[in-house]
This record gives sequence, structure tokens and C-alpha cells, in this order.
Amino acid sequence: MARSIKDKDSFKAFVASIEGKSGYQRPQAFGLGLATQSGDGDILEVFYPSPNFESNFGSAAVLAEILGHAGGTASYTPNLEQLREVLSCFAPFDGESGHRNIDILKRLIDTAAQGLPSNKKIVAAFIAPGTDPSDVCEAYLRLHLFSHRLIKPHGISVKGIFKVLPNVAWTDEGCIAISEVPQRQLERRLRGGILTVHSVDKFPRMTDYVIPSGVRLCDAIRIRLGAYIGEGTTFMHEGFCNFNAGTEGPNMIEGRISSGVFIGKGSDLGGGCSTMGTLSGGGQEIISVGTGCLLGANSGIGISLGDGCTVEAGLYVTAGSKVTLNGGAEVVKARDLSGISDMLFRRNSETGAIEAYSTRKMAELNAELHTKQ
Amino acid sequence: MARSIKDKDSFKAFVASIEGKSGYQRPQAFGLGLATQSGDGDILEVFYPSPNFESNFGSAAVLAEILGHAGGTASYTPNLEQLREVLSCFAPFDGESGHRNIDILKRLIDTAAQGLPSNKKIVAAFIAPGTDPSDVCEAYLRLHLFSHRLIKPHGISVKGIFKVLPNVAWTDEGCIAISEVPQRQLERRLRGGILTVHSVDKFPRMTDYVIPSGVRLCDAIRIRLGAYIGEGTTFMHEGFCNFNAGTEGPNMIEGRISSGVFIGKGSDLGGGCSTMGTLSGGGQEIISVGTGCLLGANSGIGISLGDGCTVEAGLYVTAGSKVTLNGGAEVVKARDLSGISDMLFRRNSETGAIEAYSTRKMAELNAELHTKQ
Amino acid sequence: MARSIKDKDSFKAFVASIEGKSGYQRPQAFGLGLATQSGDGDILEVFYPSPNFESNFGSAAVLAEILGHAGGTASYTPNLEQLREVLSCFAPFDGESGHRNIDILKRLIDTAAQGLPSNKKIVAAFIAPGTDPSDVCEAYLRLHLFSHRLIKPHGISVKGIFKVLPNVAWTDEGCIAISEVPQRQLERRLRGGILTVHSVDKFPRMTDYVIPSGVRLCDAIRIRLGAYIGEGTTFMHEGFCNFNAGTEGPNMIEGRISSGVFIGKGSDLGGGCSTMGTLSGGGQEIISVGTGCLLGANSGIGISLGDGCTVEAGLYVTAGSKVTLNGGAEVVKARDLSGISDMLFRRNSETGAIEAYSTRKMAELNAELHTKQ
Repeated sequence: MARSIKDKDSFKAFVASIEGKSGYQRPQAFGLGLATQSGDGDILEVFYPSPNFESNFGSAAVLAEILGHAGGTASYTPNLEQLREVLSCFAPFDGESGHRNIDILKRLIDTAAQGLPSNKKIVAAFIAPGTDPSDVCEAYLRLHLFSHRLIKPHGISVKGIFKVLPNVAWTDEGCIAISEVPQRQLERRLRGGILTVHSVDKFPRMTDYVIPSGVRLCDAIRIRLGAYIGEGTTFMHEGFCNFNAGTEGPNMIEGRISSGVFIGKGSDLGGGCSTMGTLSGGGQEIISVGTGCLLGANSGIGISLGDGCTVEAGLYVTAGSKVTLNGGAEVVKARDLSGISDMLFRRNSETGAIEAYSTRKMAELNAELHTKQ
Repeated sequence: MARSIKDKDSFKAFVASIEGKSGYQRPQAFGLGLATQSGDGDILEVFYPSPNFESNFGSAAVLAEILGHAGGTASYTPNLEQLREVLSCFAPFDGESGHRNIDILKRLIDTAAQGLPSNKKIVAAFIAPGTDPSDVCEAYLRLHLFSHRLIKPHGISVKGIFKVLPNVAWTDEGCIAISEVPQRQLERRLRGGILTVHSVDKFPRMTDYVIPSGVRLCDAIRIRLGAYIGEGTTFMHEGFCNFNAGTEGPNMIEGRISSGVFIGKGSDLGGGCSTMGTLSGGGQEIISVGTGCLLGANSGIGISLGDGCTVEAGLYVTAGSKVTLNGGAEVVKARDLSGISDMLFRRNSETGAIEAYSTRKMAELNAELHTKQ
Repeated sequence: MARSIKDKDSFKAFVASIEGKSGYQRPQAFGLGLATQSGDGDILEVFYPSPNFESNFGSAAVLAEILGHAGGTASYTPNLEQLREVLSCFAPFDGESGHRNIDILKRLIDTAAQGLPSNKKIVAAFIAPGTDPSDVCEAYLRLHLFSHRLIKPHGISVKGIFKVLPNVAWTDEGCIAISEVPQRQLERRLRGGILTVHSVDKFPRMTDYVIPSGVRLCDAIRIRLGAYIGEGTTFMHEGFCNFNAGTEGPNMIEGRISSGVFIGKGSDLGGGCSTMGTLSGGGQEIISVGTGCLLGANSGIGISLGDGCTVEAGLYVTAGSKVTLNGGAEVVKARDLSGISDMLFRRNSETGAIEAYSTRKMAELNAELHTKQ
């Protein structure tokens, strides 16, 4: 089914004809990826070199048309002929710089023409707005969107992603189905080495997929694909970031950012400090940390912080902690202080009481507390 | 010395004749392994693809007979002829499915016939009941038994294992004697790469030997071979487990399980929490955590917990901590509460006192405390 | 420019002639290294197999003469002819054992003669006393000096090293410029594997450069090149050591040693404990821990400790903490106790107050406190 798209106008016309079809729905996100499959043909993980979010709708339309995708969230395994057909539609743009999607497509086609390794497969995924993860391919695309900084945490649904993703072995020979590991271990050793299994998990490390600009990630296995790491962020070795969580940047992170938690610009997390996530006992409330905050080493929070807050090293403020305000004026639950700016939390080293100090006057602070309740 | 074992009956008779010999002792555990050796021929580590514990006594007898092993704890380096002789004895079972030991033996023989890599050696180890670790080969077998879930922590002696195991470099080229590393580093770099040394330790990571079923181990280097990781356990990146320690499963572990510590079913360890081990200042008492417990993030315990206990995030309960019971009724040392169920430990955020609350009445609790003392 | 150095006397005379030149300055440190360069020819990292500190002045003089180095801190990229000329000067020592520098030089020349891998380059660096880091090559040499135990923390300037070192990707294919990673990721996957990016950082792990004698480093990525790890030190998986920091040895380290911090002989850091560094909120004061101290699990210090001190598990002593002395005799700021020996720090579990106990009498302790102020 060779199409004849000779110039950009005919490309536009072709795209318009696809988008004009009844039922066609522009994807919120889409991507062409390279998947690893098990010996049984199960998809284990997918790498999208150049994921797209609310952009490149022309490319999306062409890809959808050729793969027979009308709308919704779905994944496909295009064959070589289909890939070549897609490429042929991009002919008017060929040779122009800045079309990374085209460069990647060509590289995939070249390799596929010579035969991909047996554990590899080319896939395409489309995500429609408002849908939850439904298969491995498009779930991986969602994770890529965060880490490529195309969306911030909570910017797309990851509901039920644990049920969708397979648990696999991440090794120095790539991603392997767990059932295939024992044989691979024996064979590698018979060749003189040792198969190193870095991780057994549903989520890979982010850096094996993308390194966002301007970051340092000292022990990269501790940052999962699906983390959003803002420009200028440093994760020291003790830093950790789950998927659907992250930092606005710049930030210095030596503590743990739980799933769902987002850290504002200029805030630092001291060594070993803890932020309670919705997956880890923090309940339904999504914790956030505003700008310019400092969580001391080995501290922790079960509440959100506004801007300019400090938590003393070693102090854990849970939502239920009773906090003495401004040197004894009032005692409130820590959850009542959630999200309020310019607070200093410490434990009085003579009385053992948890105290909070505000730079504002008590009346002003009370007004904010009452508004909140 | 070709034996003629034509059917299962003659196999049984052969086994009976061996086991009937004066002085023959059934091994508690045995295995056929593939060892890494240094350039000087020192054994550095051993991989047992299929270790045996109180099982497969027939295979054990045949192996013992051919290697000249009568009893006790000992290790051997069988030659190709001996391995073939062992295999010939298993002829009646050949072709049947489910004999992993036979499949592995064949694979070892095939490779050995063509020449093993110079750093590899086939070994066999037998462990007699009640013995302590005595050489590298059988010490590694002990560690395998825990991680293959054949025994639980404290199920076999690991006394003095630190003196038995060599300290080695775990690299992306396998296990290397430390004295050989500088030359290997230079050579690898002259080839364009960098020799990655993941660890310098007496104990390897568990996943390079076995991945027990139904687990997730996000940063696998933090789980040592010799850990017992129960079905359904997740170790997040911050989780750690020493050898001779583990989880019953299912468990969510984001804290550190020290040597000797065992965590019961359904208990969760929050991020960065600490359990004192006998190697790390916890003295002689072996700490355990019962079922359905929750240790909050950055908390810690120097005592055992019964079932259904909670330790508040950020609170460290040492054995010597004075604990106020049920809102002031009594003050006891934390060690007196060791192992008692249904306790909630927290630090009063107004008074700084460590408090424990029980769901039971004070009289009932007192009775249990007094029984314990 | 072939020189004729036939015996050790003529070598000595040659060295004397170089050192006698006007303006020649003996280097404090020098080394011949193998660098990784990017596709653009930028130096990414350097490996010095045998760095020299205040030693081997003869070799330094010969190397300096042939590379045209008169003094100061500078780096060079010697060509094959120059390397051969250096080697020719060492002829009188050739064949003698114990000249590791000569062995390495020969190995470099052999490989260079056949063509180094395109990403490798031979470099030489000289460091003059009292200078700050100025380029990648000599900055890496400084880091090597600590880890080879040639100098202790603070033994050489590392001022401004963050600006000098490039941020790079540390992968299982070696050190890669970050801009080259996306293409390498795609190509590796098209060959069936996954490019593992262990770290994105300015500092590499120490063990990929040197393993000092008598240490165990369970999770080696957590010890940066530039750490000084004393004989007999064990870093458990939770241990961490920054550059320009370290341990005297023997030590058991399960906590974090921040940049600038040094831990004395026989002191143990419990799991997850924290030492505040000058880079991490500790201000200008350089923290140190004396001999025979114990920091409990999840504890932390913002002050220095003298010898024989203990900090209770879970307690964070910041510089500003008010500390009750010897059961109520006096209350002082923790910073006043900085560096004093034989102190026990704990939080009273009934009153919540931070307390310090000294084995000395109050009068004696007060005298020391007043001397200090």
C-alpha cells in the first residue's frame, strides 16, 4: 500500500484526512519503542528513545493509520513493511535536521532489515486521555513521560500499574524473565564469569532509559524510571526517588522521595530523611514540599510543607504529632500545619516536646490555621 | 571402575550397600557446585545450582562413594572421570523429567570435557549435622541453603564463617582475587572499558546465585547470599538483609534486617528502620519481629517484638529505654516488653517520654511481664 | 633526542642536572595515567595505576624534562616517542623487581604502539605544593592520593574541584560523555542488551581505581574516589564515604561519612547514622570523630567527638542542642562539648531531654569546657 507523499502539503493533507475520520482521536501520548521479550514472547520492558506528549500529532496520525489504530489506549507490534511505509510518509522531512523520530525510525528499520536480536521486538503505543495503564508497552510509555520531563508527577494516570508490569530480572545481560535466570546463571559461569543481577523488580532504573539534562545521580539504581528529576538536581548516594514523584530542581537530595511526593525548587533533603508516600503508610494525602525548604538528616515528615520550612535533623513529624506553637502559645496536631509556609520544626532538647516556630505573628498564623480547617 | 546400574532396583541396592557401610553417615546437606578459583588455585566462591538439604540421599550416597567420602563435613574436587561415573549410576533415571541434578551434572560434564575456563573448577561438598563451617566450598553451601529456602535463619551453623570465607572483589568480570585486581584494571582500561568493582566482601549478593520465587529485590546488592527471603517479600531500595536473617513473607521491607534477625509474616519495615543484630551491638539476644508488625520509617528496635506491634516513625527503642506503660500506670525497661504482642511504641510529642500502649488490660499485661521475668 | 643513560650513576647525574635548573620545582605529586576521552576529545576521567606523593623525585625529574615541565601544577599528553624516551632513561633499573612505574610504563608503550582504543589517551600530571585543582587530569591525581593512602583527608587542596570535574555517565561500557549516552543506549539495545548506567556524577566509585589493602566495601558505589579508607575498615552496605573524608582503621562503618569528616581508630558508625559535613549544612567546622567511639544506629552528630564517646541509637546531636550534663548539674550547648572525650550522649526516655554523661568529675569537665571557650 505505497502512498505517494511528495511534499509537506501532501503530508498535511494526508494527516488531515486521517484526523478527519469518524472516531479518530488524537493520542495524548505515543511512541515507537524497542521492547525486550522473554523466550515465550512476553514483553518484559520497552525503551522509547523519543516519547511524544501532546505533540507531533502528524506523526501520530500517520502511525495510527498504518497500524490501524483509531483511538483509545493500545499497543502494536509493527512489522518491517509497516515501518517502511511510515518512513515513506515522512519523505518530505527527510534530510532536515531536528527530526529525531525519523532518525530513530531509520535506525530501527536498518536493524530490523538485518534481523533484530531474538529477544527484541519493535512496538508502538498510544495513550488516550483519562485512561489507566492497560498493558506493558503503554505503561512503560507513561513512565518515560515523567522521566523525559514531558509531565510532572500526577500528570498522567499510573493507577494499577503494579498489576500491569511484569516482575523481571535486571542483569548485566539486559532484562531477563525470572524463569530463565537459573539457566543463564549456569551458562555464564561455565563461560568464566558471573551473571550480575542488579535488581528483581517491576520498575527499572531511570538512567538505563534517559538521563535528563543537568542532573547528578550518584547511585542511579535508586531512581526509578517514572521519576521526574528537575534541572539542577543532585541525588547523593543516599537519595531515592520513586516513580510518579520527583523534584522541581534545583535540589540537593540525600533523602527518600516516596511515590506521589514532589519537592519544590531550592529545597534540600538531608541524608536519610523520609517523606511518607501514599504507598507507604501516608494514607490518601499526597505529600509535597514547597520551595526553599530544608529537611535535616534523618528527619521525616508525614505532612506537607509549605515554602521556606525547616525540619530539624533527627526529628520525625507525623500527621498525629502534637506540636507546641511559637514557644507555648498553643498546641495543635501537625496535620493542621500541613502546607503552611515559613515553619521551623524542632524537638526541644530540654523538654522533649515537638515545637514549631513561625516567622509570622500568632494572630496571622491562627487565621491561616482556621482557614485551613 | 564402571558400575552396571541398569534399573532403579539396582540403583536402590547400590545405595543401600553404600549406606550400609560401617561409618557411613548421611549428609545433612550436599551439593555439586561450580567454583571460581584465583590464579593461585584458591577457591574464591562456589555456585550450587541445586543444593540438597535432608533429601536426595541416594544421590548423596553415590556421590560420596565415588569421591571416597565416608561422612563428616568435607569438600572435594571431582575429576571428569568421577563425574561420568556418577552420571552412569543415574542411568535408570535419565530421560525422566524433574531430575534437575542430572541435567546440571550433564551440563557440567559437557563443558568440562571441552575444558572449563581456567578460573573455574567443579566441586562437591557434604555437610554433617552439628558441624561449623570449615572450608570455602561447604560454607558457600550453607549460605545457599538459606537463600534456596531449604532452612530458615539459625537452621544451620554459620559459626566462624567470617574466618573461613575469603575477602574478594565482585566485578563485572566475575569474582577476582584482590591481588589480581590492579592488573585486571589496567588491562580492561587498555581495551577501552573500566573494570567495575561492585563490592569487596566475603559475602556476595544473593541474586547472583538464586532468585527465590515471588520476591522483588529493588537494589539486589543489599541482600547477601545466606538471606532467607520468604514468598511475597518486597525489598525496596532502602531494604537490607544480612545472611542468616530474613523474612517469612509476605513482607514490605524498606529497613535493615541485621544478621540473626527474622521478620514474621505480614510485618512491614519502614524506610531506614533498624533492627539490632548480634553482630552490631545487640549483644547475645537474637531479635525477632512477630507477625503483622509495623516499624515506622527511621525507627529502630533493640528488643524483639511480638505479633501486631507498632513502633512510631523516628522512634528508636533500645533495650535500656525506660517505657511508660498505658499512659502512666507503670514504667518498665523496654527489654521487659521484648516479645510481647499488640504493643504500640511512641514518643509522647508533648513530654518526650517513650510510651507503650497495650490493647490488653493492665492486669493482664502485668501478668505477662511477670511471667517473663 | 636519544639520551645515553647507561648506569645508575649517570641516571643520578641526569636527575641532578634537571633539578639544578633554574626554576625547576620538585612536584609534590605526579603520575602517569590513562584517561578516557569523549568523542570530542574532552578528558572525562583519569586512572593512575601508581600515583606518587613526595617520592620518586628522580622519575619526576626525567618525566618533567622530557615533557618540558619546569614546575607548577600542570598536565600533559605525552606521545609515544616521549614515553619511549622516558623509558630509555630508566634502563639502569630495568629488570630489577619493585619498579611498578617502569612495568606500567612498558605496558602503556606496548599498547600505544599497537594503537590505543579511540576513547583512551595517556596523560601525565604534576602537582605543585599549595595549589588548587586546575584541570581534570591533576584533579583526578589528587583524588587518587587519598585513596592510595598517600595523604589523609585535608592533606591536599580540593578547593573548587566541583568546577573542574566534568559530570559524566559511569556505565558498564566505561565512562561516557552524557551527550553520547542516548545513541549508545539505542545501539546497545539493538544488539540485544541494555546499557547499564550505574551513576551520573563528577566522582567515580573508588574501587574502579584502587582497592586499598585490608578493607571490605560491601556496596562499593557508596565510596567515592578520594576517600581515605584505613587498613581494617569494613563498610557495610549502608556505609558511605565522600571524597576528602575517611577512616583511620580499623573501623566498622554502617553510617555516612560526609566530605571533610575523619573517623579515628576503633570507632564504629551504626547503621544509617549521620555526620554533618561542610558541604551538607555543617557550616565551616570540620567534624571529626576520635578513637574508640560508637555512634548508634540512626544517630547523628553536628559536633566533633573526642575519644571514647558514645551517641545513643536514634539520637541526633546538633551543634545547637541544649545538653544537660551529668544528670542535671549544668546545661550547655552541644557545640561546647565538641571534641571532648569520654562523653555518653543520650535522650532521657522519661523526660525527653538530651543528656551527656562524662566519666570525669564535674570540676574536671568544667575546666576543660572553660579552656575550650
